Amino acid sequence: MTNAQSLPIARAVGASSPAAGEVQRSAEVLKVSTRSRPSAVAGAIAGVIRESGMAEVQSIGAGATNQAIKAVAIARSYLNEEGIDIICIPSFIDVAIDDEERTAIRLLIERR
Amino acid sequence: MTNAQSLPIARAVGASSPAAGEVQRSAEVLKVSTRSRPSAVAGAIAGVIRESGMAEVQSIGAGATNQAIKAVAIARSYLNEEGIDIICIPSFIDVAIDDEERTAIRLLIERR
Repeated sequence: MTNAQSLPIARAVGASSPAAGEVQRSAEVLKVSTRSRPSAVAGAIAGVIRESGMAEVQSIGAGATNQAIKAVAIARSYLNEEGIDIICIPSFIDVAIDDEERTAIRLLIERR
Repeated sequence: MTNAQSLPIARAVGASSPAAGEVQRSAEVLKVSTRSRPSAVAGAIAGVIRESGMAEVQSIGAGATNQAIKAVAIARSYLNEEGIDIICIPSFIDVAIDDEERTAIRLLIERR
């Protein structure tokens, strides 16, 4: 486990200059990378769902998308314990990264 | 593009002994691999949703899960054109592969 991965969830989510392995959160969009910890992302998803009933997760590439979907599965079990049922709506979205257009996967997560 | 990948969708879905790159369908569970074509899986998902209103997709590993989630996004656009709105519920599921226990991602897909 690296230092970045052992950061507490509170630090891992919402930091302005996140290091590798953290969850980058901007304007309610949770950006997930290959090195994001699914449980940290799940905690962030659960928090946003509790606040607003809706969350958005974006990932680019197979590794990141896999972490994102695992995070949604974990967030579901977190929220189920509180009687909250969430569903997920996947779609493609074009995002600009360093002036290059990339296709990301967007997971919209909503209370059922 | 390999031969397996260029197979028509009708062949790729529902074959009893699927080759690499095909979608394995058994008891309404669509098993997706890294080499599954997302558009073929999407066609299978759309077909099962039209029939029964519910489909189940299973994948093991990041590559396969990425193909599965892309397939759901594509199936959504196929079905949206017909006025059908689908949602996705991800969870973990333990499956036995060659007497070894593996953790798969299960995507339950339902009409909203």
